[in-house]
Amino acid sequence: MRQAADIEIALRPRPEGVTLQRWLYDEIRTAILSGRLMPGSRLPATRDLALRLKISRGTVLAVYEQLGAEGYIRGATGKGSFVAPELPDLPPRSLVPGNAIAGPKSRDATDTPFESAAVNLSARGRKLSMTPFGVAGRSFPAQAFRTNQPDVTTFPIELWSRIAANRSRRLQPELFMDVDARGYEPLREAIAGHLRSSRGITCSAEQVMLVSSVQQIFDVSARLLLDPGEEVWVEDPGYPGAHQVFTAAGAKVVDIPVDSNGMDVAFARDRAPNARLAYVTAGRQAPMGSVLALDRRLALLNWAHRHDAIVIEDDYDSEYRYEGAPLSAMKSLDETGRVIYCGTFSKLLFPSLRISYAVLPDQLIAPFTSAISLTSRYAALMPQVTLHEFIAEGHFGRHVRRMRLLYAERAQAMRQAADIYMGGLLEIPEITMGLDTPAFLSGDRDDKNVARLAAQAGIESLPLSLYARTHPARPGLLLGFAAVGPAEIASGMRALARVLDA
Amino acid sequence: MRQAADIEIALRPRPEGVTLQRWLYDEIRTAILSGRLMPGSRLPATRDLALRLKISRGTVLAVYEQLGAEGYIRGATGKGSFVAPELPDLPPRSLVPGNAIAGPKSRDATDTPFESAAVNLSARGRKLSMTPFGVAGRSFPAQAFRTNQPDVTTFPIELWSRIAANRSRRLQPELFMDVDARGYEPLREAIAGHLRSSRGITCSAEQVMLVSSVQQIFDVSARLLLDPGEEVWVEDPGYPGAHQVFTAAGAKVVDIPVDSNGMDVAFARDRAPNARLAYVTAGRQAPMGSVLALDRRLALLNWAHRHDAIVIEDDYDSEYRYEGAPLSAMKSLDETGRVIYCGTFSKLLFPSLRISYAVLPDQLIAPFTSAISLTSRYAALMPQVTLHEFIAEGHFGRHVRRMRLLYAERAQAMRQAADIYMGGLLEIPEITMGLDTPAFLSGDRDDKNVARLAAQAGIESLPLSLYARTHPARPGLLLGFAAVGPAEIASGMRALARVLDA
Repeated sequence: MRQAADIEIALRPRPEGVTLQRWLYDEIRTAILSGRLMPGSRLPATRDLALRLKISRGTVLAVYEQLGAEGYIRGATGKGSFVAPELPDLPPRSLVPGNAIAGPKSRDATDTPFESAAVNLSARGRKLSMTPFGVAGRSFPAQAFRTNQPDVTTFPIELWSRIAANRSRRLQPELFMDVDARGYEPLREAIAGHLRSSRGITCSAEQVMLVSSVQQIFDVSARLLLDPGEEVWVEDPGYPGAHQVFTAAGAKVVDIPVDSNGMDVAFARDRAPNARLAYVTAGRQAPMGSVLALDRRLALLNWAHRHDAIVIEDDYDSEYRYEGAPLSAMKSLDETGRVIYCGTFSKLLFPSLRISYAVLPDQLIAPFTSAISLTSRYAALMPQVTLHEFIAEGHFGRHVRRMRLLYAERAQAMRQAADIYMGGLLEIPEITMGLDTPAFLSGDRDDKNVARLAAQAGIESLPLSLYARTHPARPGLLLGFAAVGPAEIASGMRALARVLDA
Repeated sequence: MRQAADIEIALRPRPEGVTLQRWLYDEIRTAILSGRLMPGSRLPATRDLALRLKISRGTVLAVYEQLGAEGYIRGATGKGSFVAPELPDLPPRSLVPGNAIAGPKSRDATDTPFESAAVNLSARGRKLSMTPFGVAGRSFPAQAFRTNQPDVTTFPIELWSRIAANRSRRLQPELFMDVDARGYEPLREAIAGHLRSSRGITCSAEQVMLVSSVQQIFDVSARLLLDPGEEVWVEDPGYPGAHQVFTAAGAKVVDIPVDSNGMDVAFARDRAPNARLAYVTAGRQAPMGSVLALDRRLALLNWAHRHDAIVIEDDYDSEYRYEGAPLSAMKSLDETGRVIYCGTFSKLLFPSLRISYAVLPDQLIAPFTSAISLTSRYAALMPQVTLHEFIAEGHFGRHVRRMRLLYAERAQAMRQAADIYMGGLLEIPEITMGLDTPAFLSGDRDDKNVARLAAQAGIESLPLSLYARTHPARPGLLLGFAAVGPAEIASGMRALARVLDA
């Protein structure tokens, strides 16, 4: 066995903000892993090393204790400490790129030194790694005509914060522990009550399941109900978030055309009668804005009942109706338990709240609850408790009524501005609901190109063709009117008109 | 066309708490859907109906407007309102059970009238609908020896609430909108800093991904990296949450035995060298408590590097080490980007907070972020903002240090109580880490039976055999010591001794 005297541990200088102990630990550990300290060789006695480094012996002892506990060195009383014999090598660092982010690599691609660090994604993983959502957050302030966003500047945060603080102070300790996977029971009660009055849905709190995003509902529904390759009806043009999550879950998406009465149910029944799932934005078709006609709603329910299929009704923003009461949800017609109704508070309050919910048919409560629990446990409790108080004290109803008036004004402002500046360049249908509207381009202009030019002029919009897959959409732009005020809407429309003129 | 005079709408009495308008709407709608009002028949004039019902004509007009907008009736000025012609029937309600919750039905089961409402789950759906987690929340107060739970009664909720309120009041509006799918950037920074000092992990905030549960990390990892049927190494005995979520994701779980040095990596390499994923509780094996030895950590990393595989390190509670500093995580050795490190605040703070995180290899950041965004968008923001403030102000470090002392006392109390009351009936190994410990039964008693008897005596415990699949576990109980005080621990041990004596 070699002597301690033979050993020279080359100690690099200590970096800023690193403790003596962490530094010494790192240095010796690195020396062992790199082979500079040979397996079996003896380490300096703690006293000697402490003297040499002019640090306390206690620090050295602590480092040796840690290295011993982690298996780098072995101590033999009296004999001192030795580097553990025969440790396997670490993989050579040189083989991998420093901090480069290698993109997804298809498994059959040939390996190159650089790609050796890129992970082979599974076939389904490559689908899963394509999201239609911006993953970097959204810019502030919003510009005309940002889609899919409420006006967050009007949210009563002072009030919300006070409620949150008062309520959480009174939180019973059991609410700090794991809670019901379906979410906070009083909030589920409140949602059931809200749906009864505002959406014509009769359901119990038992059927309400709280999640952090409707995407979770789509994903879990597809996995619970479909095996890979089984069919799901999806509107086309339609919401990319649904189409892509179903595809990533291995479902065979069947594109169903839409018209002024919503999804063409007869086409769907004809094309894929044995589908096990259907996704529909019945209240206001995304992005075309049409309402699913009553006869189609009934036909869809009949099909689902006869074929033992399930319908997902994504009711994303039709609570905002600007003339008369909101139209009843399709779920209000579901007497045979075929509809999973999805709602969200992202647009009624604010997106980063992350509280959405499903109303489940009785027979799906147990499997759905299990699936959510297995794949994500349950949604964060504190925001649910605050939201319940916010609803119970009547603030929710007031806020929604206030926003409805505000957005009605803005919808009108948009149509007026279009009348003033557009002169037939852009056709905006009557706006009766929601936070955005399709606006159709005259002639057959390439709406992707128009959206690009508009963006260069500082105008946010989404080309309708972005939502189309096998059934082309009439060329146009999806324009949001909720996130900005009438003045920005007017100037935005003027700027957009200039773009279209050019 | 029949005359209004012919029509008698039988109106049922108005239920408690239902508005006139909602009641009248429901009655006419039901009459139409049930066929009592024939397609094409004319409705009473609004004035006549208002007089007959002694309600305001405005109410009747609003109801007709709503029914018209929803397609139940058609109005022809001057001619009055008519029931829409030829509406499809609703599925017959009689076919389905009222509110009975039908369980999952296997698709090949024969239909019976009752089951006609039960949903056919997919093959994978049946796996997905089996969760190992209690879905109904946990009882309070906790009893000895509740596992897998910190002492929530000691959490400084007053302080937390104050911080939450003050911070959220100052929230910039952009944080109400959709945010970075990886979570709140300052919190990711704080976590990276915490991991550097307490777990020896060098990582950037870029690599930290916030989620609401580690189950999400397991599920998304399996789907991103494995196609159905591909292999994953899982410890056996091991954590059911991991085993079941991998199975539900279609992975072929390969059971790897564990011993006093943790997972048997040589066995695994031998049995399934081409697995694409490995799951390991390196810091403290769940449930057996052994630490993965250094040579096995290095061997595991070497295998992963050579076979282009990924290792999930589930570091669930090893931050609680009761002698010396916490041992470095296996991730601290990962120089080639092979380890997904999983941590959680559920046990450091409180479970219903729902903030967990992954530290991702660079090449997985993009695909992982996309997959989380597609399947659940991002975790609720407000709790993240509060947690960041809680950490930044030093409260987090103080709380963890306080808990570490508290739990060290309780671990000692448990061993002492075992020495006093057990007399060899139960063998509790030295407790150096974590919130629970395995306790081995003498002889070959059936630990499931013992756990059942203990439960009858008011003692919470989990049989070790519950964690075993193909490799039997030494008979014993998993006992938690963190959730209750020394007195309950002592009396609990006495009660458990009586159970074992019997």
